[in-house]
Amino acid sequence: MDRIESVKNQKVKQWRKLHTKKEREATGTFMIEGLHLVEEALKTKEIIKDLIVSEDTTIPTHWNVDQLNIILVTKEVLKAISDTETPQGVAAICEIQTELSADNWNKILFIDSVQDPGNLGTIIRTADAAGIDGIILGEGTVDHYNSKVIRSSQGSIFHLPIIKGNLVEWLDIYSRNEIPVYGTSLQNGVSYRDVSPSEQFCLIIGNEGSGVNRELLQKTVKNLYIPIYGGAESLNVAIAAGILLYHLRG
Amino acid sequence: MDRIESVKNQKVKQWRKLHTKKEREATGTFMIEGLHLVEEALKTKEIIKDLIVSEDTTIPTHWNVDQLNIILVTKEVLKAISDTETPQGVAAICEIQTELSADNWNKILFIDSVQDPGNLGTIIRTADAAGIDGIILGEGTVDHYNSKVIRSSQGSIFHLPIIKGNLVEWLDIYSRNEIPVYGTSLQNGVSYRDVSPSEQFCLIIGNEGSGVNRELLQKTVKNLYIPIYGGAESLNVAIAAGILLYHLRG
Repeated sequence: MDRIESVKNQKVKQWRKLHTKKEREATGTFMIEGLHLVEEALKTKEIIKDLIVSEDTTIPTHWNVDQLNIILVTKEVLKAISDTETPQGVAAICEIQTELSADNWNKILFIDSVQDPGNLGTIIRTADAAGIDGIILGEGTVDHYNSKVIRSSQGSIFHLPIIKGNLVEWLDIYSRNEIPVYGTSLQNGVSYRDVSPSEQFCLIIGNEGSGVNRELLQKTVKNLYIPIYGGAESLNVAIAAGILLYHLRG
Repeated sequence: MDRIESVKNQKVKQWRKLHTKKEREATGTFMIEGLHLVEEALKTKEIIKDLIVSEDTTIPTHWNVDQLNIILVTKEVLKAISDTETPQGVAAICEIQTELSADNWNKILFIDSVQDPGNLGTIIRTADAAGIDGIILGEGTVDHYNSKVIRSSQGSIFHLPIIKGNLVEWLDIYSRNEIPVYGTSLQNGVSYRDVSPSEQFCLIIGNEGSGVNRELLQKTVKNLYIPIYGGAESLNVAIAAGILLYHLRG
């Protein structure tokens, strides 16, 4: 078992860099922190490259860590690589899954330029709960391996396939396969209540400020809005995603 | 028009204290920041005690600030009283409304011990959008005049009455008035889809970790759950509120 005591250790320096998207993409890895997230990752153990454990922490006895590369570190090292104020004593370096397939998805969520990490994480968690088959992230959307996204997703990032792609191209593919693609829009469109739940659908959720890209909205079957009955100007994007996904899946 | 240049000014010191619940309760006032929130507050102008404007900021010309007590401050003063990293140049001290009445509410939201300010603000915004008549905050719920709650509510805090109260007592009152009170629960209970939308209802949303207090759950007509189809353990509390409120109001 390796042991690292110094925050100046090369490995520690490299782990810290994983808080940047650039480093995550260059290395094909990302970091997760905390008991709950590491436990979720252990369910697909092969993605864990390194399990990092603080010397003042005891791994839960029900964890099966056979064959994992465990690195023992000091409390200071764990604090140095963490971006939370009170690290839970355990972290892991995981491999980014690149060979995810979008075949046979029937319930799909497109995310177009959602920028707040907390919103994206909550949307992923919600899509997971709603039994969505997969998520496609369009350009301009915050990286889903950002630590705040992972945290807000509460581990759902490990439960369903999430890929990056060109939403216009994917929209064309699903349309050809006769899966109805619904945009979302504050203006125009039809109330979501006028669309019946179904086995197959693709929903597009858009940017917090500007909504779904116009080019996408022009190619959908219908664009849905959620009626606003009170004085609010709009709903939070994750709330809107929750209402629509649970309605559409029926 | 008053003008304050020093961050050591007595008024500035007192405004800063408004970031604590204790000071807000002692003075019966709270602070809001930013163009959007101040614009919302201006719709009920009588609640604004002081309008604080940074000298490098121009008030939008469509704002009607007649008879308001405007205090001009330096950029440094505004930064000192703000809790955001990039203050927008305008803030206001508002009076806490104490004489809100819960009469004639037909669609009511009870909030039992929600602790994250972002969650509470988002729930308030969502309840506003869903046309809820009023919100009752039970003990243990984060103070709704907390600046992060106000920010997340996007101004909805000004759109519907929010009062603090004993939820058990209020539950009894609504039950006597034959308004169905629904709890929420991860276990037990009935799927929310099995309850029909109606003109009158009261929904109870609970703590992020422990849910709704058991004493309340025992006094409801029904306790509702939202089915989880994927691997997520639960939904974020604000997402659950959104799905349930939009379902119940029909």
